Amino acid sequence: MSALQALQSKEMLVTRKNQPEDTRIEVGSYVLGSEQVVVIAGPCAVESEDILRETAFKVRAAGAMMLRGGAFKPRTSPYSFQGLGEKGLKILARVGEEMNMPVVSELMDSEDIGLLVEHVDIVQVGARNMQNFSLLRKLGRIGKPVILKRGMAATIEEWLMAAEYILAAGNPEVILCERGVRSSEPWTRNTLDLSAVALVKSLSHLPVMVDPSHGTGVRGLVAPMARAAVAAGADGLMIEVHPCPEKALSDGEQSLLPAEFSQMMRQIEGLTRVMGRRVR
Amino acid sequence: MSALQALQSKEMLVTRKNQPEDTRIEVGSYVLGSEQVVVIAGPCAVESEDILRETAFKVRAAGAMMLRGGAFKPRTSPYSFQGLGEKGLKILARVGEEMNMPVVSELMDSEDIGLLVEHVDIVQVGARNMQNFSLLRKLGRIGKPVILKRGMAATIEEWLMAAEYILAAGNPEVILCERGVRSSEPWTRNTLDLSAVALVKSLSHLPVMVDPSHGTGVRGLVAPMARAAVAAGADGLMIEVHPCPEKALSDGEQSLLPAEFSQMMRQIEGLTRVMGRRVR
Amino acid sequence: MSALQALQSKEMLVTRKNQPEDTRIEVGSYVLGSEQVVVIAGPCAVESEDILRETAFKVRAAGAMMLRGGAFKPRTSPYSFQGLGEKGLKILARVGEEMNMPVVSELMDSEDIGLLVEHVDIVQVGARNMQNFSLLRKLGRIGKPVILKRGMAATIEEWLMAAEYILAAGNPEVILCERGVRSSEPWTRNTLDLSAVALVKSLSHLPVMVDPSHGTGVRGLVAPMARAAVAAGADGLMIEVHPCPEKALSDGEQSLLPAEFSQMMRQIEGLTRVMGRRVR
Amino acid sequence: MSALQALQSKEMLVTRKNQPEDTRIEVGSYVLGSEQVVVIAGPCAVESEDILRETAFKVRAAGAMMLRGGAFKPRTSPYSFQGLGEKGLKILARVGEEMNMPVVSELMDSEDIGLLVEHVDIVQVGARNMQNFSLLRKLGRIGKPVILKRGMAATIEEWLMAAEYILAAGNPEVILCERGVRSSEPWTRNTLDLSAVALVKSLSHLPVMVDPSHGTGVRGLVAPMARAAVAAGADGLMIEVHPCPEKALSDGEQSLLPAEFSQMMRQIEGLTRVMGRRVR
Repeated sequence: MSALQALQSKEMLVTRKNQPEDTRIEVGSYVLGSEQVVVIAGPCAVESEDILRETAFKVRAAGAMMLRGGAFKPRTSPYSFQGLGEKGLKILARVGEEMNMPVVSELMDSEDIGLLVEHVDIVQVGARNMQNFSLLRKLGRIGKPVILKRGMAATIEEWLMAAEYILAAGNPEVILCERGVRSSEPWTRNTLDLSAVALVKSLSHLPVMVDPSHGTGVRGLVAPMARAAVAAGADGLMIEVHPCPEKALSDGEQSLLPAEFSQMMRQIEGLTRVMGRRVR
Repeated sequence: MSALQALQSKEMLVTRKNQPEDTRIEVGSYVLGSEQVVVIAGPCAVESEDILRETAFKVRAAGAMMLRGGAFKPRTSPYSFQGLGEKGLKILARVGEEMNMPVVSELMDSEDIGLLVEHVDIVQVGARNMQNFSLLRKLGRIGKPVILKRGMAATIEEWLMAAEYILAAGNPEVILCERGVRSSEPWTRNTLDLSAVALVKSLSHLPVMVDPSHGTGVRGLVAPMARAAVAAGADGLMIEVHPCPEKALSDGEQSLLPAEFSQMMRQIEGLTRVMGRRVR
Repeated sequence: MSALQALQSKEMLVTRKNQPEDTRIEVGSYVLGSEQVVVIAGPCAVESEDILRETAFKVRAAGAMMLRGGAFKPRTSPYSFQGLGEKGLKILARVGEEMNMPVVSELMDSEDIGLLVEHVDIVQVGARNMQNFSLLRKLGRIGKPVILKRGMAATIEEWLMAAEYILAAGNPEVILCERGVRSSEPWTRNTLDLSAVALVKSLSHLPVMVDPSHGTGVRGLVAPMARAAVAAGADGLMIEVHPCPEKALSDGEQSLLPAEFSQMMRQIEGLTRVMGRRVR
Repeated sequence: MSALQALQSKEMLVTRKNQPEDTRIEVGSYVLGSEQVVVIAGPCAVESEDILRETAFKVRAAGAMMLRGGAFKPRTSPYSFQGLGEKGLKILARVGEEMNMPVVSELMDSEDIGLLVEHVDIVQVGARNMQNFSLLRKLGRIGKPVILKRGMAATIEEWLMAAEYILAAGNPEVILCERGVRSSEPWTRNTLDLSAVALVKSLSHLPVMVDPSHGTGVRGLVAPMARAAVAAGADGLMIEVHPCPEKALSDGEQSLLPAEFSQMMRQIEGLTRVMGRRVR
């Protein structure tokens, strides 16, 4: 663990050596990095205003605080649905405002930073762009928080270093998000590494979220892994919910139905109390 | 997930299709696979009767139900401490009896099956022997429960198939134990795959435990991962505890101090209540 | 292998089903995808005009055909040397012209596409940007060849799909480059997957290169793996060479000395003859 | 690479520091660890005397030196064909004698050591038993060479340490065999790590073979990877050949037809000459 000890002693912005107390990131009336476990929910992609509004209404009723929805989608194949782009961002912003929910969406191209900053409350960097260093540097100069997902095969050190790029460029509001790493297990899409949550919380003052939807890729595993994430000390959850998963244009097989999400929230609520935290 | 669906529909002994209700394995006054979360604790290796007795006394006081201790140690180097062998088993059995704790120890060689069956309550198969199929078949003919650890790079299907070897040979009392898989993360010894717990519980009626000590290899991560394991639905925990980890002959850096174990047990107790389970 | 069969039957631009004959990419007087094994050599980063000129002179004398040198460097830490940027590209172009060697350099930000197209003969996409889909789409609209490195944990299907993004956007000149995947082996930087070379050659008409420098991260393994790559059917090699590796600003431990490179070239020459190919 | 340097300086039996010159292992008229690249071929499992005789006849005609065939098969499922056991060993020995080919077969259970030693010329330890330490120790006391396959997720250090168990127990005749490591690539059964060959040859005096059949699991990749193995410096090859792969009771999809094997041998012959080695 000498590399770990080296990091602990380094003069890096992300470390607790540099800043012992937790970074608290206020978004609307919520605080990431506080005793509140912040739950962000919504469909993988913004598909239409109606579906998004229905989803938002239901996840808010179940206790979700923020709304997610992809407008620019990083798809393995160029022939898959690529998202609605700017139109999707506008729909997301409108529905978020109606529902009084801060909104989160993914940035794929540095050209679109202005659009994202205009329409969303938190800008997400996906796993595939975790080491897109020029994008990270540019995100250091926006005035909005950034969710930085862990790369598919990134070590924890590389992930913290990627966050350091954003902090070093001037933006202290970075939220780390574990979303599973590649493994040789074929029955799950990725292997969710919850030990990374506890390890990062001990090394860094930044908030850490968990995305059990991408982290497992299997609907039935989302709730158990969401519970486990909270028990491991996560500051937030990002959950894919779709009113009709089998018709979703992407990631349907890992999206919860609104009723399943609601049941998950009740389980989480009990757990947070025991952990000295809260969801509401 | 077609392979998964294939398994669900197969006429295999390990599947819930074959046996919908949970397998319950009684050991002393405890039941693995029941509402009770069974905690097994103790040193990595049996080093001396005094150290083992001290450890057993303290972990029992903190709530541990069973005592673990290695007599035959699978060590990477032939020049590392290999365990006390039969002498170690006898010490373990004696201390277990004194403390009224069932005992668990690892079998490495089929020649020693008789010795293990004589002295321990549960025989453990380590990760390195998960696909030692002739050993598995022989364990199908003993009258004692077997803890089957997941291999270092085993898929969940291979792990269940390894259990099937034992069941097919006549022993229905198999407890699966997730202990982390090899990954490219250098800061943890292995990557603990808690999604495997939830997945196996849905596919199989066998009890599933978690070993966060080997699963992380880092003392500070054992308690968070033990909590996460319980939240994910684990039926038991296996925890390394040593009164003086820095002097342990093996795995000291991942062993909890008795006081840390005690604190962990209090956290687990709260969690199990919320989960509708119990540790006592 | 059903996914593989699916790919083989798909109407995708990268597949041999779509184009049975090899894609031949002419760069200067060389042809990638021909019987010639094209060797690209040079330092990891352009550090100074003098060092680059010395390196270029020596690798050309040893038989290298093209010159590589990073101007924009993707570094894990924001505090590491990030490359000379535009100044580096100009040095590379100047030295390439002097030596009559086509030049290759990596693009990190879509904003710099114009600069790259102006100064280099082949634009390289690094492993960290393999799924930077907006960058890939933009590279579909330039009139220069693109080397697409395999991502650190990318499957072969994802790699081919990333190439498809470039082809679908209008640029048929894509050269795939295997550079090792993440593994749990700590003694090499990555695990070079040479079976990917043979597999891609059978599925796709695109040329495939191998980078044994990043693929192993160990100087002593570069020549054996370069030989193995040629024996596996690679159409080209990319090799890091530095006149003084211990003073290199990046990747010194994997850079060959010019004399080592020269020896490697002699070995390759013999192998190519047996394989019915040539380096000169 | 500090662990590597540590190994290089250790007083271990497997290292070149302990024994600079190559270990040469004579089996019949062949020498593993010499300038000759030794090719072992045959079916995955001994299925019948007729099929084995036909295969042996054809692979010998194509240049194979030794005959392989499994009698005890490590199968993932207890319901798959498990091998003919002692009967299979006797068939193997008989056919080997008829054809004047030394024979190799896998040991799965220490109880069967006597049987193996009686009937075969080289005893093979499979990937799943690489860290079956009590088995290794017992193989240290036989007077026959041992092929030690690399474990599915074993590091090179663990593999060398496993060999050290055998050497330390008294048997200096260990042949290492790379057979691929687990990865996240679904299109190949394993990822063949040829850099391990070059690395082990530099660290250790033991002969190193490569098994491209298990290492790829894909018929069309066996010959390219066999060539690459030789180019990387392997001392031998182990190749699965079956006269009728689609009817093979195990591993048919990776077995070469005799004609394909013959073509592969001609390619290997050319390569070995360039490498200053020979197959005949």
